[in-house]
Amino acid sequence: MTAYTGTIVLPQTKEEMIVDITGEVAREIERSGVQTGICLVFVPGSTGALSVLEYEPGLAEDLPAAIRRLFPRDIEYKHHIRWHDGNGHSHVRASFLGPDISIPVLGGKPKLGQWQQVIFVEFDVKPRKRELTVQVVGE
Amino acid sequence: MTAYTGTIVLPQTKEEMIVDITGEVAREIERSGVQTGICLVFVPGSTGALSVLEYEPGLAEDLPAAIRRLFPRDIEYKHHIRWHDGNGHSHVRASFLGPDISIPVLGGKPKLGQWQQVIFVEFDVKPRKRELTVQVVGE
Amino acid sequence: MTAYTGTIVLPQTKEEMIVDITGEVAREIERSGVQTGICLVFVPGSTGALSVLEYEPGLAEDLPAAIRRLFPRDIEYKHHIRWHDGNGHSHVRASFLGPDISIPVLGGKPKLGQWQQVIFVEFDVKPRKRELTVQVVGE
Repeated sequence: MTAYTGTIVLPQTKEEMIVDITGEVAREIERSGVQTGICLVFVPGSTGALSVLEYEPGLAEDLPAAIRRLFPRDIEYKHHIRWHDGNGHSHVRASFLGPDISIPVLGGKPKLGQWQQVIFVEFDVKPRKRELTVQVVGE
Repeated sequence: MTAYTGTIVLPQTKEEMIVDITGEVAREIERSGVQTGICLVFVPGSTGALSVLEYEPGLAEDLPAAIRRLFPRDIEYKHHIRWHDGNGHSHVRASFLGPDISIPVLGGKPKLGQWQQVIFVEFDVKPRKRELTVQVVGE
Repeated sequence: MTAYTGTIVLPQTKEEMIVDITGEVAREIERSGVQTGICLVFVPGSTGALSVLEYEPGLAEDLPAAIRRLFPRDIEYKHHIRWHDGNGHSHVRASFLGPDISIPVLGGKPKLGQWQQVIFVEFDVKPRKRELTVQVVGE
């Protein structure tokens, strides 16, 4: 039985950028040596999120557009009133989408659909250097 | 220590259908032999999602109604403009609700609330034959 | 390899209350003795949810405000029409945010960002006594 920790270092991100991390996730699973188990990808930070998406240019615009519609930037956020960092919407968006995604590992690979990619979504207003944690548990 | 993989085959689904899979999840946990651990249920596909719900006819209408209100079908989706498959809203909805749910396993059973069921939500516009992956890790 | 089960008992909650459970999660991970693995926190109940948030007074207002905007209390819910318990919105909100959060365990501690707390969000309309399940799997 193995419990493996890996890291995915992202290129510098900017607000509403979606990064396809499927290849990096598969690489970390391979490094772990786990054939059957669970792979957890997590962003240690409260203004980024993880999910899945068919990663193609259309949806890479549609998902942020939905997020802007549901969680507007320009309404009042108490967070901004207190801290003046202008990213109240970033926190609320990230909290909704969630910082974690768990993926089954079968045959040493992530078990994903053919058009299903693992994505990181940046919600912060400033460019960020993100390091995601990849935890693989299994045998 | 065990790492078990099971499959749940759903009857044909259609758009906005909610399927109660609690019994199937409990069955897979029993098959795994795991008494204490984590059960991950995952849809390998980018137009379906997993969550929990008190599965009763009222909420089986209320949840899709909320989803339609927040992610309308008839607004512009770049995905549709590119691919003409009419399911841009399906992808965005599924990405928001998420493809994974993790449930504690205690005493060889899923630890759920009395009125809490595990559900699959179909978001695609065409009928689909879904196979969900169930991963159980523990001892 | 260890599979540990712990419980977090919350003080009485009320609707839209956010509880910072980071300390309790860290305590349960320590009790488990797991150094490297996955910690799943789960609410067995269909009207509460788990996520992460920078837990500070501003965002503790902003997140509920966003939830009220997206899932209003005073629109029609079939759940209410059937069961007259006035919490249709609670169920839909909880189903969206989700009952589970998984956190990496490194060096016997939760791997969180500096400003990232683990939160429970109460959505039910009546005060509740909640017991969360904490499952830690790893070595």
